[in-house]
Amino acid sequence: MQVPSPNAREAASMYGTAVAIFLVILVAALQGSVPPKTLFPYHIPLDPEGALELSWNVSYIQKNIHFLLLVHGLQAGVLFGMSDRGELEGADLVVLWTDGDRAYFGDAWSDNKGQIHLDTQQDYQLLQVQRTPGGLTLLFKRPFVTCDPKDYVIEDGTVHLVFAILEEPLRSLEDINTARLKPGLQRVQLLKPNISTPALPPDILTMDVRAPNVVIPGVETTYWCYITELPKGFPRHHIVMYEPIVTEGNEALVHHMEIFQCAAELDRVPSFSGPCDSKMKPDRLNFCRHVLAAWALGAKAFYYPEEAGLAFGGPGSSRFLRLEVHYHNPLKIRDRRDSSGIRLYYTAMMRRFDAGIMELGLVYTPVMAIPPQETSFILTGYCTDKCTQLALPPTGIHIFASQLHTHLTGRKVVTVLARDGQEKEVVNRDNHYSPHFQEIRMLKKIITVHPGDVLITSCTYNTQDRKLATVGGFGILEEMCVNYVHYYPQTQLELCKSAVDPGFLQKYFHLANRFNSEEVCTCPQASVPEQFASVPWNSFNRDVLRALYAFAPLSMHCNKSSAVRFPGEWELQPLPKIVTKLEEPVPQCPVIQGQQPAAPIEVSIGGNRG
Amino acid sequence: MQVPSPNAREAASMYGTAVAIFLVILVAALQGSVPPKTLFPYHIPLDPEGALELSWNVSYIQKNIHFLLLVHGLQAGVLFGMSDRGELEGADLVVLWTDGDRAYFGDAWSDNKGQIHLDTQQDYQLLQVQRTPGGLTLLFKRPFVTCDPKDYVIEDGTVHLVFAILEEPLRSLEDINTARLKPGLQRVQLLKPNISTPALPPDILTMDVRAPNVVIPGVETTYWCYITELPKGFPRHHIVMYEPIVTEGNEALVHHMEIFQCAAELDRVPSFSGPCDSKMKPDRLNFCRHVLAAWALGAKAFYYPEEAGLAFGGPGSSRFLRLEVHYHNPLKIRDRRDSSGIRLYYTAMMRRFDAGIMELGLVYTPVMAIPPQETSFILTGYCTDKCTQLALPPTGIHIFASQLHTHLTGRKVVTVLARDGQEKEVVNRDNHYSPHFQEIRMLKKIITVHPGDVLITSCTYNTQDRKLATVGGFGILEEMCVNYVHYYPQTQLELCKSAVDPGFLQKYFHLANRFNSEEVCTCPQASVPEQFASVPWNSFNRDVLRALYAFAPLSMHCNKSSAVRFPGEWELQPLPKIVTKLEEPVPQCPVIQGQQPAAPIEVSIGGNRG
Repeated sequence: MQVPSPNAREAASMYGTAVAIFLVILVAALQGSVPPKTLFPYHIPLDPEGALELSWNVSYIQKNIHFLLLVHGLQAGVLFGMSDRGELEGADLVVLWTDGDRAYFGDAWSDNKGQIHLDTQQDYQLLQVQRTPGGLTLLFKRPFVTCDPKDYVIEDGTVHLVFAILEEPLRSLEDINTARLKPGLQRVQLLKPNISTPALPPDILTMDVRAPNVVIPGVETTYWCYITELPKGFPRHHIVMYEPIVTEGNEALVHHMEIFQCAAELDRVPSFSGPCDSKMKPDRLNFCRHVLAAWALGAKAFYYPEEAGLAFGGPGSSRFLRLEVHYHNPLKIRDRRDSSGIRLYYTAMMRRFDAGIMELGLVYTPVMAIPPQETSFILTGYCTDKCTQLALPPTGIHIFASQLHTHLTGRKVVTVLARDGQEKEVVNRDNHYSPHFQEIRMLKKIITVHPGDVLITSCTYNTQDRKLATVGGFGILEEMCVNYVHYYPQTQLELCKSAVDPGFLQKYFHLANRFNSEEVCTCPQASVPEQFASVPWNSFNRDVLRALYAFAPLSMHCNKSSAVRFPGEWELQPLPKIVTKLEEPVPQCPVIQGQQPAAPIEVSIGGNRG
Repeated sequence: MQVPSPNAREAASMYGTAVAIFLVILVAALQGSVPPKTLFPYHIPLDPEGALELSWNVSYIQKNIHFLLLVHGLQAGVLFGMSDRGELEGADLVVLWTDGDRAYFGDAWSDNKGQIHLDTQQDYQLLQVQRTPGGLTLLFKRPFVTCDPKDYVIEDGTVHLVFAILEEPLRSLEDINTARLKPGLQRVQLLKPNISTPALPPDILTMDVRAPNVVIPGVETTYWCYITELPKGFPRHHIVMYEPIVTEGNEALVHHMEIFQCAAELDRVPSFSGPCDSKMKPDRLNFCRHVLAAWALGAKAFYYPEEAGLAFGGPGSSRFLRLEVHYHNPLKIRDRRDSSGIRLYYTAMMRRFDAGIMELGLVYTPVMAIPPQETSFILTGYCTDKCTQLALPPTGIHIFASQLHTHLTGRKVVTVLARDGQEKEVVNRDNHYSPHFQEIRMLKKIITVHPGDVLITSCTYNTQDRKLATVGGFGILEEMCVNYVHYYPQTQLELCKSAVDPGFLQKYFHLANRFNSEEVCTCPQASVPEQFASVPWNSFNRDVLRALYAFAPLSMHCNKSSAVRFPGEWELQPLPKIVTKLEEPVPQCPVIQGQQPAAPIEVSIGGNRG
């Protein structure tokens, strides 16, 4: 480790940056030791080869993140950073690189053509560079918000980490074009909630749900299905915690895992262990959809709040569980064996409250559709005051976790709680949502929903690559907009979702027909997907569909289970009136005391280059 | 004049502002002399009593304005500043005030309730305070853009200057509530164009067009009409410049003046001098609408570009001129005499080009309407590529000045030039447009329009105080969206405006009928204003009207005069497709080297208080 010398000045002029006066960033020299792992509670492998590993911690007080990047077998350098949706273009980056003689570290950004430029404001602050037997470690920190317009704003929800290896020395940073690099992407929730771990009961038991000895198929994507069962006569327990068990060496392959409970009505589910899309898969597995546990890459153990647990076992509850493991194997590695799964921690000392899961958002129906070629079309589902008034206890319910869900065109999801026509707080928001990264996330703040409150779930879709309208439905090419909220105490309300009134949609088709010279099929025998498929998508029909969804009354699903509605009139319900909207938080930009130098700093990375 | 002493520290703490470290702003002490008037080319009286006068200059290089505020008969202080539309609430202010003992100057802002607060960032920089026999002068400067979110951004176009007199000493700035002050408002173009004055020809002649010896009526608003005529046989000349002649002492009463030429078809126009709304006014005056010259408060002389002049006199041109003077007399002063008018400078040495005036924007027709209760509804008028292709010379025309025009609900106006589907440049933009302040403004940059170019004029309206839709038309309660552009060389094209196709509007009425349970009149015998009056203005009908205007084909008016179209098909014309839009300029916020103190500075204002 070497503190940057005055040669950094030469480096700056070498890279053509005309900086009259600049400061050398202080590099804290922690002599001879890697910061202990405990300082970095979060850890994720970045690339499938295992060349890059990231650990980090979050300070909500200082509003910054410390990153510890471990580089195995360093070549000529490395790029690491973040971008809106995981592209190496338009990314906010740190770059470590060498010109073959010296090595440098800088805060940079890539433009939309992939050209890399040094930031005028250096917000990634290098704290330590160290060679260890395991590789080179870079310790650096960055504020959540830098106020540099070229920088990514680190928000709650998904962050798309991007990275690439530099194989050859460079004359200058501007010599890099990301188009010539092999791009890497890893999605993660960087801003993990800062929640203290609830105490576990003394009688805690564990149950490992894992598919034993799976041979991971040599294809990029596999969803592996495995059926297991609870012991006969297994009584009612509370699951209070669960954590992933990932087979050593397969950390970069196991992308996400979920345990589903089968429907209580099934008296028997045949054994199965194989790809979920296998022709051999028994049909009955389709009735195993009740989520018990879910984990995704980068997530840690999931703890229920101390006063609640998820009931399983006992009468009225299926003994059959389905484990689903998503293997992400872009290198198409063959013959790798895996026995990953989830370890459930459960107790017979039932906690005060049963936890429940409720579905918010849109009903799975084709009446909710997204025109093709839209970059950010928003669909909104409501849980109305009438439903919460009827179905929630007087003291309300407490939402402590949330799992957002859409299919392939989903880009953002948010659920907002409104009361008396005013948006009050965000239940969960992900501005960089990816359908490929669906975690159950603990909320940073428990949200209490009272009877009469309204829950508004909005999903933003990108259908630029679609030729026809994308309608709502179960199919992977259809869309969903769902927030599975985890709450307690459990109520009968399992599903509080909406869709546009189908009669008003028929008025829309009639109107689209009238406004356009082309023939639009409004024949009553045509299905809604067929009707949507024949709408000519000019600006008028797009705008009017938006106007329809913002105006037409709702068909409400205020249901005890997916098929049983609460008693009451749920058709032609008025759209909740929202008078006051929550404003998206505007970053509070600190007053800048002095300009940081627009120059990389020189670092010593030892003799391990090339 | 006294340089602020260290007592400013005490003042700061007295006002409860906890500033740990702060700097005393340097006040430049110009000993014993008011800065010469020539340093401040622009001048305007602020209040009708003549207590406040403002002079200013603009530096486009330093991007700031120097203000010289003259206060006659200072009482306990004065507020001066700017706000979006002239309210004292939500304003960006400088305040000079006394606590009865000391006097202070500070950069402040008023919240929406009228409470005044000191800015954390002091961007109005006081340069000089001086007592002269004429009163107290305050010299201060401010950048156009301060990057303080509480501050007004000084843009091109109208600025609403606000002011008020403080009559009593204050314990602190927070004691002021604007609701208890008498608000003052003066509209002005602060950012005057920085154009060098074209040379005048040696044979220059002048003609004063003024209404002699008018007794200004003792009412707030009078439009005075006066008919005069050119000498018999007056040959063709070029007007190359004109300037206001305002009777001394009436500077605050004469709000704007225009000279119109009567229609050439009228062989005789009777003499008249009286209010324009007088029952005695001859009807023929309604045919005197061709603008020759226009001036408004704060404007200086208007110069034609050196290669062009406005033709008047000679055959085919009316000898009769109408002068219109708008007297703004809020104090209802009686028996004040006035002979204000405009001095035309003209030459017989005809310049190379005749200048012309062309109308852009919307046709005066009720098919273009604004729903009631809208805060910012936009209507857009087009001058299409087909029309400019047909009517403009191959070398194009050069627009050098522009006068924006709407009726009472107009709030913003902008004209943009587009070429090949891309918006290229702004012809004229006013984000704080007021129908009460319609100047001819020289453009900062001459805009060349080529055949095939498209000119897009958009007006933003506020109809919050209307119960029914506001339709397009000539009436003062109807609306217009017009940009009168002054250009050369003159062409036959007098009018290039559009409206929505009336057939598509009928489809809209039909649709509004179908979507609403209420009965909407779509009977063909009803007039368009009657149809609009019966639309139930729910969100759907508002959104669909917007969608209609953004989609439906145009009825184009590509006219030689208001009644004669160029040959060609002008109905059902496609809406110009704009692929790339101009982005509104984002203020480039300078890097702040150190925080300014959030404290007022103490000033000496001599013994003239109370």
